[in-house]
Amino acid sequence: MAKQTSTTVSGEERIIDLFRPLARHPGAFGLIDDCAAITPAPGTDLVLKADAIVGGVHFFPDDPAGDVARKALRVNLSDLAAKGAKPIGFLLTLALPSGVGMEWVANFAQGLSDDVERYGCLLLGGDTVSTPGPVTVSVAVFGSVPTGTMVRRGGAKAGDRVLVSGTIGDAALGVRLCRDVALTKRWGLSTAQTQHLIGRYRLPQPHNAVAEALREFANGAMDVSDGLAGDLDKMCRASGVSATIHTERVPLSDAARSALAADPSLLEPILTGGDDYEILAAVEDAKLAPLRHAAAAAGVTLTEIGSIAGGDGARVLGGDGKVLAFRQASYSHF
Amino acid sequence: MAKQTSTTVSGEERIIDLFRPLARHPGAFGLIDDCAAITPAPGTDLVLKADAIVGGVHFFPDDPAGDVARKALRVNLSDLAAKGAKPIGFLLTLALPSGVGMEWVANFAQGLSDDVERYGCLLLGGDTVSTPGPVTVSVAVFGSVPTGTMVRRGGAKAGDRVLVSGTIGDAALGVRLCRDVALTKRWGLSTAQTQHLIGRYRLPQPHNAVAEALREFANGAMDVSDGLAGDLDKMCRASGVSATIHTERVPLSDAARSALAADPSLLEPILTGGDDYEILAAVEDAKLAPLRHAAAAAGVTLTEIGSIAGGDGARVLGGDGKVLAFRQASYSHF
Repeated sequence: MAKQTSTTVSGEERIIDLFRPLARHPGAFGLIDDCAAITPAPGTDLVLKADAIVGGVHFFPDDPAGDVARKALRVNLSDLAAKGAKPIGFLLTLALPSGVGMEWVANFAQGLSDDVERYGCLLLGGDTVSTPGPVTVSVAVFGSVPTGTMVRRGGAKAGDRVLVSGTIGDAALGVRLCRDVALTKRWGLSTAQTQHLIGRYRLPQPHNAVAEALREFANGAMDVSDGLAGDLDKMCRASGVSATIHTERVPLSDAARSALAADPSLLEPILTGGDDYEILAAVEDAKLAPLRHAAAAAGVTLTEIGSIAGGDGARVLGGDGKVLAFRQASYSHF
Repeated sequence: MAKQTSTTVSGEERIIDLFRPLARHPGAFGLIDDCAAITPAPGTDLVLKADAIVGGVHFFPDDPAGDVARKALRVNLSDLAAKGAKPIGFLLTLALPSGVGMEWVANFAQGLSDDVERYGCLLLGGDTVSTPGPVTVSVAVFGSVPTGTMVRRGGAKAGDRVLVSGTIGDAALGVRLCRDVALTKRWGLSTAQTQHLIGRYRLPQPHNAVAEALREFANGAMDVSDGLAGDLDKMCRASGVSATIHTERVPLSDAARSALAADPSLLEPILTGGDDYEILAAVEDAKLAPLRHAAAAAGVTLTEIGSIAGGDGARVLGGDGKVLAFRQASYSHF
């Protein structure tokens, strides 16, 4: 609520100028109006999602500004991918502490600009405010699907196979490496392996290229953001089914495999730690082959890790075939 | 990034349960999916806006939780009103410090629920995260207009009259009273007058009832959130016109009039302080009468305060007919 002395161009306007090149959508009105307007294509639904990331919670305060921006957008794009939706655009609210200078904001805008191009998801508008707290970035993202075809979390059916994209657990190990550099040695990781895991924490790689195939072939899907075990349980509850997955089938990166070999207790953070931003899907037998084919064409590996049955809840079986118990199956902020 | 010990129902899920009754829109999927989906009516545009409010910046940390929630939604609804859009729904991201308990969140949800009913704007989804900073509430709101009819900030034309809704400056005085109780006496205010001004700061009263009439009769409009003088200047720049308004025509509440009489220097915060959430509109002569009529039917008073001409920039004339100079014409966070 503090006021500044007179300036012809306020800091707020200089910040808006940095973001204007990202707002090429005609409905963004060059960021000079109060609101944006979009004309949805006939026969489509708009798919909506908002997710926030907070300094000291979802990223480290000294993470590169461009990566912070890209993470904020990507955690939202990951949801659109899992829902089979094509990105349209997003609104950004950026809360900045007073210590953050224009260079940080310029780097933030540049990182965001890179992903605007990469994912074809344009800035539609937003709000920049000051905060006595940490940098807080909230994104509301919009995508489109043909009417009624959003892939639902609650669509899994008994008999479906459970698939997961990419590799699981990298980010959960990466954040531990960020906090404690000594772990690199204890886990026997090469520099490249350490970089891989930290990179997976710092910058999610959402699989938007596979969205259309999911819409065509998956009964149900969600993104894995709060940990595979807990997110699978959420899918089961939403679908009214049970799932059984096998630990040894869960796809791990070479780096995660090395760390797990050095410390078997890492299995729990790998399966429950979250920040994976991979896709979890339930797919019936007949559609496995065409989905895999389409995913491979999009450069995305899908691995079958288990199956859906009647009943309720997710079971994770260890190598000995026994059900694993976790302290907490998924990340909760509270 | 801290983990809790095992619980069958996480705090995050208990918070979601509090908000579930607000999410009656079928596309909110009962808050159990990753995303919401809405099917825009054929022939309509979706009008989009995101605005955040931060504890210690936009509200006081000890303001009632229900009022904080309602303010967060209302500052966004105010933009929809000025754009002539009908509210559909919103996404909420709520960043909560650890000191905030479930009772605060329950009161927040109850206040939000009241406004969901009042404005017919349903919760579509959201995200709740922890923060080491203050409570931060970001809302992305969605409204609809017939395609291509959003009232633009840049639509003002030479010859238009400048109208403003309600009264100006109340919130700017209200926040000063919140900070310094001694001002009540210095400004010679009654308890009711003080309550009025503080109430206007704490809880905006957006005029969504007048949205349709604005769409029908206004050439241009925006909401007054950063101060009348500066916001009028923004409208002029967006429209490529100039405006001249007369201080003595600016509508003031009885309370603001009393304060101004006691301290004439308050004219500046009244005209530049912001948080008014009134509507500023440019309207051609022939449409003044039908707009006023429609606004009156909706219970909204519109006051003519000046006119639009060629040229650029806003001029505010004092009682002596001379142009007033302000230290800063509108609020800027930076």
